[in-house]
Amino acid sequence: MNHQKRHFVLLHIFLLLASLSIYAQKDYKLWLQYDKITKQAFVAEYSNSINGIISLENTETSKIASRELETGLTGMLGNKINVISKIEGDNKIIIGSKSSLNAEIQNTLNADFEKINEEGFIIKSAALKNKKYIIITGKKDIGVLYGVYTFLRLIQTNKSIQNLNIVDAPKTNIRILNHWDNLDRTVERGYAGFSLWNWQKLPDFIDQRYIDYARANASIGINGTVLTNVNANALILTPQYLEKVEALAAVFRPYGIKVYLTARFSAPIEIGGLKTADPKDIAVANWWKEKVKEIYKRIPDFGGFLVKANSEGQPGPQNYGRDHVDGANMLADAVAPFGGVIMWRAFVYSEHDANDRAKQAFAEFQPYDGKFKDNVIVQVKNGAIDFQPREPFHPLFGAMPKTPLMMEFQITQEYLGFSTHLVFLPKLFQEVLESDTYQKGKGSTVAKVIDGSLNPHKLTGIAGVSNIGNDINWTGHPFAQANWYGFGRLAWNPYLDSEVIADEWLRCTFSNDENFLKPVKKMMIESREAVVNYMTPLGLHHIMDTGHHYGPGPWVSNLSRPEWNPTYYHKADKNGIGFDRSKTGTNATAQYAPEAGNIFDNVETCPEKDLLWFHHVSWDYKLKNGQTLWNGLALKYQEGVNQVQEMQNTWNKTEKYIDSERFKEVQMLLEIQYKEAKWWRDACLLYFQQFSGKELPKGVEKTTQSLDYFQSLKFPFAPGN
Amino acid sequence: MNHQKRHFVLLHIFLLLASLSIYAQKDYKLWLQYDKITKQAFVAEYSNSINGIISLENTETSKIASRELETGLTGMLGNKINVISKIEGDNKIIIGSKSSLNAEIQNTLNADFEKINEEGFIIKSAALKNKKYIIITGKKDIGVLYGVYTFLRLIQTNKSIQNLNIVDAPKTNIRILNHWDNLDRTVERGYAGFSLWNWQKLPDFIDQRYIDYARANASIGINGTVLTNVNANALILTPQYLEKVEALAAVFRPYGIKVYLTARFSAPIEIGGLKTADPKDIAVANWWKEKVKEIYKRIPDFGGFLVKANSEGQPGPQNYGRDHVDGANMLADAVAPFGGVIMWRAFVYSEHDANDRAKQAFAEFQPYDGKFKDNVIVQVKNGAIDFQPREPFHPLFGAMPKTPLMMEFQITQEYLGFSTHLVFLPKLFQEVLESDTYQKGKGSTVAKVIDGSLNPHKLTGIAGVSNIGNDINWTGHPFAQANWYGFGRLAWNPYLDSEVIADEWLRCTFSNDENFLKPVKKMMIESREAVVNYMTPLGLHHIMDTGHHYGPGPWVSNLSRPEWNPTYYHKADKNGIGFDRSKTGTNATAQYAPEAGNIFDNVETCPEKDLLWFHHVSWDYKLKNGQTLWNGLALKYQEGVNQVQEMQNTWNKTEKYIDSERFKEVQMLLEIQYKEAKWWRDACLLYFQQFSGKELPKGVEKTTQSLDYFQSLKFPFAPGN
Repeated sequence: MNHQKRHFVLLHIFLLLASLSIYAQKDYKLWLQYDKITKQAFVAEYSNSINGIISLENTETSKIASRELETGLTGMLGNKINVISKIEGDNKIIIGSKSSLNAEIQNTLNADFEKINEEGFIIKSAALKNKKYIIITGKKDIGVLYGVYTFLRLIQTNKSIQNLNIVDAPKTNIRILNHWDNLDRTVERGYAGFSLWNWQKLPDFIDQRYIDYARANASIGINGTVLTNVNANALILTPQYLEKVEALAAVFRPYGIKVYLTARFSAPIEIGGLKTADPKDIAVANWWKEKVKEIYKRIPDFGGFLVKANSEGQPGPQNYGRDHVDGANMLADAVAPFGGVIMWRAFVYSEHDANDRAKQAFAEFQPYDGKFKDNVIVQVKNGAIDFQPREPFHPLFGAMPKTPLMMEFQITQEYLGFSTHLVFLPKLFQEVLESDTYQKGKGSTVAKVIDGSLNPHKLTGIAGVSNIGNDINWTGHPFAQANWYGFGRLAWNPYLDSEVIADEWLRCTFSNDENFLKPVKKMMIESREAVVNYMTPLGLHHIMDTGHHYGPGPWVSNLSRPEWNPTYYHKADKNGIGFDRSKTGTNATAQYAPEAGNIFDNVETCPEKDLLWFHHVSWDYKLKNGQTLWNGLALKYQEGVNQVQEMQNTWNKTEKYIDSERFKEVQMLLEIQYKEAKWWRDACLLYFQQFSGKELPKGVEKTTQSLDYFQSLKFPFAPGN
Repeated sequence: MNHQKRHFVLLHIFLLLASLSIYAQKDYKLWLQYDKITKQAFVAEYSNSINGIISLENTETSKIASRELETGLTGMLGNKINVISKIEGDNKIIIGSKSSLNAEIQNTLNADFEKINEEGFIIKSAALKNKKYIIITGKKDIGVLYGVYTFLRLIQTNKSIQNLNIVDAPKTNIRILNHWDNLDRTVERGYAGFSLWNWQKLPDFIDQRYIDYARANASIGINGTVLTNVNANALILTPQYLEKVEALAAVFRPYGIKVYLTARFSAPIEIGGLKTADPKDIAVANWWKEKVKEIYKRIPDFGGFLVKANSEGQPGPQNYGRDHVDGANMLADAVAPFGGVIMWRAFVYSEHDANDRAKQAFAEFQPYDGKFKDNVIVQVKNGAIDFQPREPFHPLFGAMPKTPLMMEFQITQEYLGFSTHLVFLPKLFQEVLESDTYQKGKGSTVAKVIDGSLNPHKLTGIAGVSNIGNDINWTGHPFAQANWYGFGRLAWNPYLDSEVIADEWLRCTFSNDENFLKPVKKMMIESREAVVNYMTPLGLHHIMDTGHHYGPGPWVSNLSRPEWNPTYYHKADKNGIGFDRSKTGTNATAQYAPEAGNIFDNVETCPEKDLLWFHHVSWDYKLKNGQTLWNGLALKYQEGVNQVQEMQNTWNKTEKYIDSERFKEVQMLLEIQYKEAKWWRDACLLYFQQFSGKELPKGVEKTTQSLDYFQSLKFPFAPGN
């Protein structure tokens, strides 16, 4: 063996060795890697400014804050950074909430404390008796913890920490994950293994994952979690399970995270022994009051209930001739004495309603505006159908000014390739949040509805349907961690730019090397449009296969409920394709404020990305780029495939910047994504071609498979179904 | 804060910090921790004897061997140990299979090669041209890999490596895990999360866990794995799944592990479109032949099929008026041309057979002796009922001299407290393997039946029903890893002492510190008897709750099949308790060789540990210790509880020897085990007391709960059910 070859073999062996030793670490540690900083200039700056931590208080939350700071700094600076409890020395970080600060420090910060709420924080460089300190404080210890994570992020992302003056607070009150986790640990629409909650071993066994879950959430400002599926099981409300919920609540509490549960509306019958669950029945209302009292006795800071009622077969007030207001307010009365909240979902549609499904939630809920109790917040999905790769914003946003509405985003990729496809969702979330409802004139964005700045509300919130499971890397796809991260960051500040989020996440998770960052950030930002292109371009939606929602199924038309069939949505025929929701069709556009609705309503002004959502247009319709609709559609599908190929090219060049483990994982997953992008393109184009009767335009690859082949594919044990 | 207190706080914080940084590492790494050796004398000895690795060949398996040696030595010695490919220098380890060795080395080892089979290995200190080497070799590269793991274990357990002369080979051919994993990733009787096999992402995504699973198995000599549940789904045999199986087989191959599948007997109907699955039907036999050909085309070293037929509702040859021999031989013909094996389970009993369930498998299978084809091996559970905390050995062992029988142990703790109770199962396995069948006179142990030394067979084997799932620590309970480890070691050598296994495992997994080892080893060794005592002392069996099998249910008597009811097994009444299987009863004792059967048959000679298995005795029956049966039974239950308390005391003293993570995990789990041991004691004694009508003897704690309370407990989502 010559020298060069031997060198290669040794290198090869070393890489494999490295991979053996790091597994289950990098993947597990999310964006809290705290790797040693490689750029010496930064190490010098940070080390000069930080030689210790002064922790002024001793609450559980404060201890977590100082420990995290110690862990993070020790890891990143490569020197043990110690914690003391008295102000002395200099170049130290002082942490503690307002009441723990001495008068001198309090006075310097009074104006800043005015600017923040109970969860906000201040990070400030200060000189005390001519000695330099960095002060991290807040009104409460949880603010300090948020400040600590923000400070650590500065270092993780190689920012300067000179002359710090950061005053920040969350713009929404409820920043919450919705776990669609069942009691048998399956997760509805879960693609990262199974539920974290090991009910059998609770309450006595506290899995370290519960702690690390809380840590990860606190690090991005998430302050609530709904443990159970909206398709609820009443057993969670029995003492046997409440004891377990209590144990989880105790773990999460010092991290500032409140526990919420889903309330099955028929629970009074199923576990209460009552004959009815009628919200106007006094025995029912009392049952809930007693149940709530029992819960708060165990969990004094219990958050409240999330309710899916009279939707997709779930029980609800309509079973008793009552309405959503009756149901929500009855539960609201029960939790009100304890400060609890009812999050009532507006995701409703009925098989008995011949109306356009996209119109039904608005039609049903908008008239309730102002009728809910103070502690009810209505939870609205970002679009009027169901978490598609792209939907126009939900018309309810801005249309219920007297009612707090919270956003429901889906972080788990039910319709976006499960955990196999790389899609950076903050880009999708940002598009929704930036959408202008025009409800109070131009600039009435969805973000302003959500954070209460358009119409002030005591309650504000953003929910994300969790993509977390018991996979070692939490989310199935290494890049799906970015969607959890980005959700939390946007829940804190719905005005953040998704590119900034991608930059932060990549630096914290992988590397600060610009040669890595620049192309990979571009890949992330473009990934969402890629998925739209190869799945549902130009406003197509809900054309996935049945049940599991994996892969294309535009041909499906045999399901019992008409609005479950893809053919209901794309309405392809000889004349064209698309769902006419303009005034010549279902007039769904009229549910928007006129300035928004008119744009959608007119095929000329309707953004092409939403074209087939709002209009049925002919195959020969001319797109803005001069292509016919058929050609343009086919080219969009091809573009999506090309984009995934480009993602692969980008990723293949990153090997030298990151660990081989995650490099290979993403490489394998991108290969699957590429295969499946072609599958979407080929299956959809073969199917639609039957109606258009046209050849594929130049530049679009032809498949060797038949439509029959694609229609024959079955996925009997697809996860999350 | 005074100095001492501050010191304590710092220490406390440091411990928590350490715990944060190691999580998902220690737990994940099983017995392959490769921690730096702490005793300087050993570091010196090893470092002086090892300054490099010479790897003589370049097969995939050899590369794994050299990489593992490099990883392990580098970790344990704290210095990078490099790999070269040419014999030079001295104090190096030479690895390579026989054909890669030069003539000089081959000649020195010729006598040793005579002693080993194709999977065996030689580890030998040798001088070549006055230079010192340690040679690790075997006839095949897989032997080298086994040798490497054995050598690493010497160092892991702080053994001397001077004058090495180890010649070893496995005593059984098939050392195999049975995964009862379903295609939806639930695991029947699985308590460590869900299936490792992520079918959705296969074949294109190779989870690192697949590799580490193979590694762990190879390190203990396991050479086969049945991927799917014995309650089988025919879909695994379709191309869609076989493609995925092929990918797993490719990962496992270089680790010496063959893939096997469960064959659903009705597959020709379900996926083959045939009208029958009659094994005598030519179309059926041909279907299987074609199917097998298809499998071997993908997986040339496919191991074969494991079949559960006509048992607990599974389809089988009896559905067509045929018998087990017809079914097994038909499949055997299909796999024979490719060297495949049929493992046919003898776990059968029928609701239509009024006979003692314990007698049915023997009654049905023993007459088939000598009728199976050469490549069929009959898989027999260790006892005649079903994986109870204690069963007398299965009477089929030794009773079918013309038929190879393989052992089926259950590693997963279906009846032994799931993954919540610490039970060291090699102690149970050893008890079974050492049992004397007397079939060819005294000394005809079960081990000799299994390894073919009593009656020689081409095929020999031991199967273990896996306790592995996707929990980060693989097995749910840190100590359940020892059961996987111990199973592998006993499959390799069924004569190993369980105490030796415990010692090895503890050293490799936790620490070589004698202060830790001695008490914890004792705890492990005694743990099995503890579980017998608090669950089913004195030969009681099958008195657990229905379905999930968690916790006591001696009162259950309402199940449709009589032999599913605990009352069928304990037969407690005013007169006494126990199942009379002696000649005055069902005469099950006659299924054993007379020398063994007579011992069991006579209540005076029957070991008290098996008393109530074979005899119905009065509550006043005098035990050998002079106690009445009632008092003795109650005291045994109490003893079990006391033993768990003792385990807790032992464990609580180990904190300073190991990482805080695993220390706390085990501490929490032992607390649950203690609670549940009391639950078993109290529920069983309250129930049996109804019949005995006697007070609890002195020394047995009284519960404050009622029998009604225990009978009311329900576990609706118990795992593995």
